[in-house]
Amino acid sequence: MSIRSDVDHIIADAIQAALPDAAVARALTGKVFPGRVFLIAAGKAAWQMAKAAVDLLGDTITEGVVITKYAHSHGDIFRTTIHEAGHPVPDDNSFSATEAALTLTKGLQPDDTVLFLLSGGGSALFEKPLIPPQELQDITKQLLASGADIVEMNTIRKRLSAVKGGRFAQHCFPAQVYAIVLSDIIGDPLDMIASGPAYPDASSCADALAIVKRYALRLSEQALACLNVETPKALQNVETQVTGSVKQLCASAEESCTRLGYRPMVLTDSLCCTARDAGSFLAAIARRYAETEDSLAFIAGGETVVHLKGKGKGGRNQELALAAAEGISGLRDTAVFSVGSDGTDGPTDAAGGYVDNTTAGVLRQSGISIFDELENNNAYVALEACGGLIKTGATGTNVNDLSVLLIKR
Amino acid sequence: MSIRSDVDHIIADAIQAALPDAAVARALTGKVFPGRVFLIAAGKAAWQMAKAAVDLLGDTITEGVVITKYAHSHGDIFRTTIHEAGHPVPDDNSFSATEAALTLTKGLQPDDTVLFLLSGGGSALFEKPLIPPQELQDITKQLLASGADIVEMNTIRKRLSAVKGGRFAQHCFPAQVYAIVLSDIIGDPLDMIASGPAYPDASSCADALAIVKRYALRLSEQALACLNVETPKALQNVETQVTGSVKQLCASAEESCTRLGYRPMVLTDSLCCTARDAGSFLAAIARRYAETEDSLAFIAGGETVVHLKGKGKGGRNQELALAAAEGISGLRDTAVFSVGSDGTDGPTDAAGGYVDNTTAGVLRQSGISIFDELENNNAYVALEACGGLIKTGATGTNVNDLSVLLIKR
Repeated sequence: MSIRSDVDHIIADAIQAALPDAAVARALTGKVFPGRVFLIAAGKAAWQMAKAAVDLLGDTITEGVVITKYAHSHGDIFRTTIHEAGHPVPDDNSFSATEAALTLTKGLQPDDTVLFLLSGGGSALFEKPLIPPQELQDITKQLLASGADIVEMNTIRKRLSAVKGGRFAQHCFPAQVYAIVLSDIIGDPLDMIASGPAYPDASSCADALAIVKRYALRLSEQALACLNVETPKALQNVETQVTGSVKQLCASAEESCTRLGYRPMVLTDSLCCTARDAGSFLAAIARRYAETEDSLAFIAGGETVVHLKGKGKGGRNQELALAAAEGISGLRDTAVFSVGSDGTDGPTDAAGGYVDNTTAGVLRQSGISIFDELENNNAYVALEACGGLIKTGATGTNVNDLSVLLIKR
Repeated sequence: MSIRSDVDHIIADAIQAALPDAAVARALTGKVFPGRVFLIAAGKAAWQMAKAAVDLLGDTITEGVVITKYAHSHGDIFRTTIHEAGHPVPDDNSFSATEAALTLTKGLQPDDTVLFLLSGGGSALFEKPLIPPQELQDITKQLLASGADIVEMNTIRKRLSAVKGGRFAQHCFPAQVYAIVLSDIIGDPLDMIASGPAYPDASSCADALAIVKRYALRLSEQALACLNVETPKALQNVETQVTGSVKQLCASAEESCTRLGYRPMVLTDSLCCTARDAGSFLAAIARRYAETEDSLAFIAGGETVVHLKGKGKGGRNQELALAAAEGISGLRDTAVFSVGSDGTDGPTDAAGGYVDNTTAGVLRQSGISIFDELENNNAYVALEACGGLIKTGATGTNVNDLSVLLIKR
């Protein structure tokens, strides 16, 4: 099998494993619920997650509420009500849908379970503000203008919400909450994903008041009173499974590579450097292992950055791959690819890029300078010229990027 | 033992192993010469290399010629004549010293050996031009102005020299040449180091003439005639040992780490990306292996680059280390260091930098922003404030840089 066909297999497997459906199925495997199960799903992938859970659990689900973004639901789901609402700015539909979820999960018994399916976008879609929405918007604007960091912003906002910062789990008590979280933030910070409705809050009222003072925030009496109410510091009734994150993408690539005969190593699942330099670093690793007798795979998950200087067409994954081409040129059966798990890399129709030891030569023959194209952020055009674009179409998931160096023997 | 003291051990060991003396001793271990041994040493480290060889071989050496840069010899060496000459531009002393070496190695017997000790700078110090030196300089200037690449430049220059491009080895025939090469170029390209006096040349006369045409070079009849004389494509009488290169630096770090209880992995010995991004990449690896139960060491050799934007004080090794500080902050017993093997990093008195999981916190307390200092290329000042400068003094070798991530358990 060619190295390029190995690449296609690895990508297909990794994306499959990171799909909401597969992620939910994995998290529910072997899970037994003692009593009634109430399903609450919120986020951009809420519909897929709920569908997968109901397909698996069927009759076990007592009743459910699904809250997703407009145009993100794909039909009815057994025993659940589906709500579409505003994102990224919450609207009245967000609030009424959240109210429906709170009503369904009120007054439950200790052996009841709230199956809570959370995905990116949940912060806007799952919200019940404790102050008028207009004031909440105004405070958010003040915070943004003040230069407050994301931790400071969340310290304030969690206290102005009836569901964030662990309060939704508190509301469900004494029922058990089984949370399945599809993470799209590197490092899976559970207090950040949808502002952590089922995760204890680490900040204190004193922290919140210090932030108000530090940035001279203007707040109503009502908002100020909210900041003085403590968020839960521990939650006894919550069990959380993080799934479908970039870690899953890497783990799946690791499995695929093993199946294809490579000895895999995951270097990192939180890559965050410049795309070009990540490509150069992977190529430098390739040169070190050029004489290997075993097939090797070096896997890096994360999200690199691009410094836009030029006016070309491309994306961070395409830049990463193209930047590795010169450095692996002349080696034997060596390839580097990088793909965005959502199937979209930058403002292009490609998911990412692929290069191998022949790419630099092919481009030179075509009169294309890799250096110039990278300087012009024009990786798409260079990769197109050598068959190096990877196209998957929209995948239905979004858990960052996967970059892999393959050395085939 | 603390992680910082481990770092000091690793650096001392690695530099020790990369010193010319140690490198020559390693290459001569177990080597037996059947007949007379004529020593020719050329380059900036020629004196140290010759001294080490003569100290080891003593009476075995019949006679020798050492050619080094002005002020680079440190006294007499048994049975050898020492010449100091011009670098980077060859002068009359270069030519007369080279002539002395050629005279000594002329008319040798098949069981004689030429022990050829080569180090950086040899291209200027060891030279016998076949055309007047003024014309050689003029052609070099034309090539530089034309935009010719380094391969094209060497294709021309090797043909204009009586010793480059394998011709010195050809001259020594039928004697055997045992070449010990101290490499300061990443990847150890033997045809590039001192223009490869004992290494076959891959280019052809046709290549050389095509370059003349491509760049419309103006050459004398004499020079043109030289281009039509073929360089040796194979050399039966040469054995080459590359030693003391960045590979040695990495191998030594690997051994030190093992001795100190770490499980080491050399990621690369040809790192060439941006210093900041290399630091970020190493930190991303650290986060992946944060939960390891074994002590781990990830080793990268090479030479990163710095894009000067600010007016601060620092060097590529200091930038690499400082750039890793934020990313390893909060992890347990984790450090990143980077040093230049010559003991000089950028225009500073430091050899490199060290950071660990506490560094970012310490700097924050001191009101120092890592991001701002990196933007200002001011890593020296930030590292100085947290005890993160590594100072070794001049080491007497120069085989690129060593960067290491340590996770201690």
